[in-house]
Amino acid sequence: MKIIITSGGTREHIDNVRTLSNTSSGRLGQLCAEAFAQSGYDVIYIHGVHAYIPNGDILKIPVEGVLDLEREMKAALMDPDVVGVIHAMAVSDYFVSSVSNFEQLANHIENKTKKDVVHILNTFEEHGFDRVHKIGSNESGLAVLLKPAPKIIPMIKDLRSDVILVGFKLLVDVSETELIDVGYKLLMKNHCDFVLANDLVNIKGDNHIGHLIQDDHTYKTFQTKQAIAAGLVAKISERVK
Amino acid sequence: MKIIITSGGTREHIDNVRTLSNTSSGRLGQLCAEAFAQSGYDVIYIHGVHAYIPNGDILKIPVEGVLDLEREMKAALMDPDVVGVIHAMAVSDYFVSSVSNFEQLANHIENKTKKDVVHILNTFEEHGFDRVHKIGSNESGLAVLLKPAPKIIPMIKDLRSDVILVGFKLLVDVSETELIDVGYKLLMKNHCDFVLANDLVNIKGDNHIGHLIQDDHTYKTFQTKQAIAAGLVAKISERVK
Repeated sequence: MKIIITSGGTREHIDNVRTLSNTSSGRLGQLCAEAFAQSGYDVIYIHGVHAYIPNGDILKIPVEGVLDLEREMKAALMDPDVVGVIHAMAVSDYFVSSVSNFEQLANHIENKTKKDVVHILNTFEEHGFDRVHKIGSNESGLAVLLKPAPKIIPMIKDLRSDVILVGFKLLVDVSETELIDVGYKLLMKNHCDFVLANDLVNIKGDNHIGHLIQDDHTYKTFQTKQAIAAGLVAKISERVK
Repeated sequence: MKIIITSGGTREHIDNVRTLSNTSSGRLGQLCAEAFAQSGYDVIYIHGVHAYIPNGDILKIPVEGVLDLEREMKAALMDPDVVGVIHAMAVSDYFVSSVSNFEQLANHIENKTKKDVVHILNTFEEHGFDRVHKIGSNESGLAVLLKPAPKIIPMIKDLRSDVILVGFKLLVDVSETELIDVGYKLLMKNHCDFVLANDLVNIKGDNHIGHLIQDDHTYKTFQTKQAIAAGLVAKISERVK
């Protein structure tokens, strides 16, 4: 039995030396990987470049950006022995579509209607700086335009409706009611079996309040990363049986 | 004798979970720290959160963004025992001044002249999203506006004209002549004693071509990170005597 665990954060390149990064440490993903491996699963650990790395006999696949993750996820899901996906990675919701200085941008949007400005911003890919090289350090201002990246989580059940899918939702400083509500919406939308909903203000190192929401809208609350990892092993193993 | 070594990359927060990051690994800084410590220096290692960490009895000071680096550099330079600064850190040249979606931005810049557009982009700080919280993941586009961050390197000799200063210049895919020229300009401008100039295309793990430029415009070329670290110890120790 194999399980895919994604962990850490993606990073999208702005240029050769600058990135748009998600700050997840991958610590929870690491603990999940170790817990599943200790319970006899073959773990496929797809992780951001700065994520914590689990100990043990685990297949580790580093990825940079969303497109790398998409490719590796698709490849891993081809394996019929995969029974579940713990999608803990903080995936960038946006790509970098262009970088320009303020004058370059202003050249295109001066004297335009609101509608035209929005259209130009939406189609600015071919303008701005060459991002294969390093963008200069002496611009008086830079406009980094971002466009939506493909979503990874809806792809999973589309490709493999038989796997058990755990999604993750991180919000910042919201009520528990709102957190559970948003987490449950994610579950319904992406056909997750579970969603682990958490709030950044309740994460302090390994002390980590996480609510594991089920498809009947009930949820169980854990207090540490270790407890979340153990809880996931128990829930997945129950379903796999 | 104390030496300050900066290492790794800074990261500027876009919101609570997203950053603008510089990708330096801090590997060269780590090797410099270890080489100086082995030569009897007390090393103050100011490093980005993902930088390699040196072994040995070294004071380690983690920093996030440019302002943290500025504060820690100023504090460290107060110590009269500091004789040199190896400023290897990849410091962000830009801050995040605002994040907005395309409609928010367009509301402010529709039907404006080029000059007004540039002015509005330059003063957009108070507009856009509240960045204390996480920015939503379902915007059809985001405009991240960046403004110049304070430069750290000119501050060093201003505060302590007596320390030996090594600056770093990284370019991407340029001729050796251009690289040396740009490196020498950095040296003159910031009153560096040396500048280590390197090109990203000539950095492959520990194989790392680095040109150590002196204030007489001559330079010495090294082939590995280890050789660069050893070269810096030799040059600094010669000057300190």
